[in-house]
Amino acid sequence: MEQVVSASCLVSLRCTSCGATYPADEIHTTCPACGKVLFAEYDLERAAQTLTREALRSRPWTLWRYHELMPVRDPASRLTLGEGGTPLLRGERLGQALGLSRLWLKDESQNPTGSFKARGLAAAVSRAKELGAKAVAIPSAGNAAAAMSAYAARAGLPAYVFMPADTPPAMPAECRAYGAHVFLVRGLINDCGRVVRAGAERFGWMDVSTLKEPYRAEGKKTMGLELAEQLGWRLPDAIVYPTGGGTGIVGMWKAFDELERLGLIGRERPRMIVVQAEGCAPIVRAFQAGVRHADPWRDAHTVAPGIRVPVAIGDYLILDAVRASGGTALTVSDEEMLEGVRLLARLEGLFVSPEAGATVAAARRLRERGELGPDDETVLFLTGSGLKHLELVEGDYPVLDPDDPGVLDRLAAVAGRKG
Amino acid sequence: MEQVVSASCLVSLRCTSCGATYPADEIHTTCPACGKVLFAEYDLERAAQTLTREALRSRPWTLWRYHELMPVRDPASRLTLGEGGTPLLRGERLGQALGLSRLWLKDESQNPTGSFKARGLAAAVSRAKELGAKAVAIPSAGNAAAAMSAYAARAGLPAYVFMPADTPPAMPAECRAYGAHVFLVRGLINDCGRVVRAGAERFGWMDVSTLKEPYRAEGKKTMGLELAEQLGWRLPDAIVYPTGGGTGIVGMWKAFDELERLGLIGRERPRMIVVQAEGCAPIVRAFQAGVRHADPWRDAHTVAPGIRVPVAIGDYLILDAVRASGGTALTVSDEEMLEGVRLLARLEGLFVSPEAGATVAAARRLRERGELGPDDETVLFLTGSGLKHLELVEGDYPVLDPDDPGVLDRLAAVAGRKG
Repeated sequence: MEQVVSASCLVSLRCTSCGATYPADEIHTTCPACGKVLFAEYDLERAAQTLTREALRSRPWTLWRYHELMPVRDPASRLTLGEGGTPLLRGERLGQALGLSRLWLKDESQNPTGSFKARGLAAAVSRAKELGAKAVAIPSAGNAAAAMSAYAARAGLPAYVFMPADTPPAMPAECRAYGAHVFLVRGLINDCGRVVRAGAERFGWMDVSTLKEPYRAEGKKTMGLELAEQLGWRLPDAIVYPTGGGTGIVGMWKAFDELERLGLIGRERPRMIVVQAEGCAPIVRAFQAGVRHADPWRDAHTVAPGIRVPVAIGDYLILDAVRASGGTALTVSDEEMLEGVRLLARLEGLFVSPEAGATVAAARRLRERGELGPDDETVLFLTGSGLKHLELVEGDYPVLDPDDPGVLDRLAAVAGRKG
Repeated sequence: MEQVVSASCLVSLRCTSCGATYPADEIHTTCPACGKVLFAEYDLERAAQTLTREALRSRPWTLWRYHELMPVRDPASRLTLGEGGTPLLRGERLGQALGLSRLWLKDESQNPTGSFKARGLAAAVSRAKELGAKAVAIPSAGNAAAAMSAYAARAGLPAYVFMPADTPPAMPAECRAYGAHVFLVRGLINDCGRVVRAGAERFGWMDVSTLKEPYRAEGKKTMGLELAEQLGWRLPDAIVYPTGGGTGIVGMWKAFDELERLGLIGRERPRMIVVQAEGCAPIVRAFQAGVRHADPWRDAHTVAPGIRVPVAIGDYLILDAVRASGGTALTVSDEEMLEGVRLLARLEGLFVSPEAGATVAAARRLRERGELGPDDETVLFLTGSGLKHLELVEGDYPVLDPDDPGVLDRLAAVAGRKG
């Protein structure tokens, strides 16, 4: 693949709440003035000179193809495992089942470490190392921890991960394989976050919690950049997104704004649709109440660890995007999520996480209510792999003896129909 | 992404042993005359007109970008989950550890279903459906079964999979998620193969066993096409490949020949290096004995299910490629494979299967022996994901109480060094 000459057009950091700006080339977490989320800002006039449709045609399909809009300055600082460039697949058979004639499936499970989290952590860990961090730490439901651990390994940085004690067993195992220091915490992801904040202060770790540093959102926004490019520089009618911390929604919304200012797309926007679990739906509740900040959810529980997030620091950014886009927010049950997983695997050949299954359940519900029309072009974000959730697959298999003369008769019961 | 106009240049099938030819547009398995492996043959003069470096620059990065050299005729018959286009990553830190200054890692775990098997089965199931198959069946150590199950689900074809009873538990679970009919068999993959052959005859299944139909090799050969393109239309000095049935070696060797005849590369070839397990090494034994066919290996055992293959129908094709390339064949122990897995995860951020770990062990051995020089450009094929082998990761994690005032003191023992 060709060599790409770097030209990050990053200029500063700006608070999304109070508007204060800060130099980009020092380590920041949240806004020192008000504690809210910092965004990276770019010189888009300069970016427009090199980030053109034509230039993109021959760049490698990783998220670094959009390097003008990425925060990493030195190409040598880019930690790459091939993140991004995930397939946007037609969902014909699932679409027929749901009554959606123009259904797309964005399969983020084909990222390194099996989830969309690779995008954000590739950006955050690369930038943390570039700015001199000596160790990285994260509170995580699992996928983000795995991604951080992988990029930290590649960077040669020590990694500290903190997960709820009841996280599916694949998650800590994957992190340990990468050599991370893995700790389980009695509680939820926000309890893990407390330990990370205290540890960061005492031990000097760089805390890469969701939206508590400015660069994970920059990696996540590439989902929006890619989607526009894969659709031929236009956007769909609706995006259905399983929402925990919400970096994906927030990042994509930022991406669409940057693409419009670059002249690569117009003013149209998709409806941004937030899906949460019945047992943990702070953003849905705030959306329905018409408020801009979400109260913490008590007794959060769901089979989907990635959306068991009772408090999101970026709540106002998520809710602003949903409302500005004419979107909506809804809940689905654990049972509906798992049925969504089954449908994706059996109709489309995509074995995904429960969070991803939630998007199917949401699309079905919205279609039934008429909030999605039969011809609305709809994109479901399949955020992670089902391989990390094998405990959800019933595992009892017939065992055959190849020397048993009756083996084919045993098969005939299931196979005798010639298919 | 742009629409690609199909132009498969497939013309016929030819036996790799007796040379007999057969029409390509009917279902064939092995050579009806002699029982050996059939290869797909293309009109390369026609292919050369459209398969150019320039044309490729703007084609989507899946294996279908090489559609002239793929057997599927109708673009609508292509079953795609985004297979191919996997990253070719620099292995700087691992290279330093091994004493190889030009080390590349081809991460096949980023394929759909987490392994290189997606390539072969995408081609085979697409073509099976195009030619009218009503059901597909496979004997498999796991990854091939998962890939077949996924593409069969996407095609709406029933799938029958047969795995050794001691296969790692992730493998049958993944297949079941896709809706396949899963059977465990007391024995090894060749015992599974006996059941599949009998079932195919009785129930009309299409048997997609390794090299027992002509199209899996066509999917696998795209690893060779991609490698050449990713390196800027040249080949490395050495390719290290974990070898069970050997479709990858055989397919890549065929690909290099086709690329030369298309004028896309020259006459140079990499040394093809076969790695097998100490407990199952029929190809290594035949290589060392100077023979062209391998005797079945007795009491095959290794922690790497994908290379626990005691009999390979394509033995002569594998051995021919290794010898013609000036390559070699060697064994590594299970312990060395697992150390390879650890090194890849901890130094490069790639968590892979034991088969993939075997390539690291082999490269180290060959470097120590001087058979690989310090500047030999070497590509390790990382064939599958470690997520299907989590039973190999030791899982015992400290549990923290976030309200314990002594929690940071507990962390200090591992974290107090500020990284």
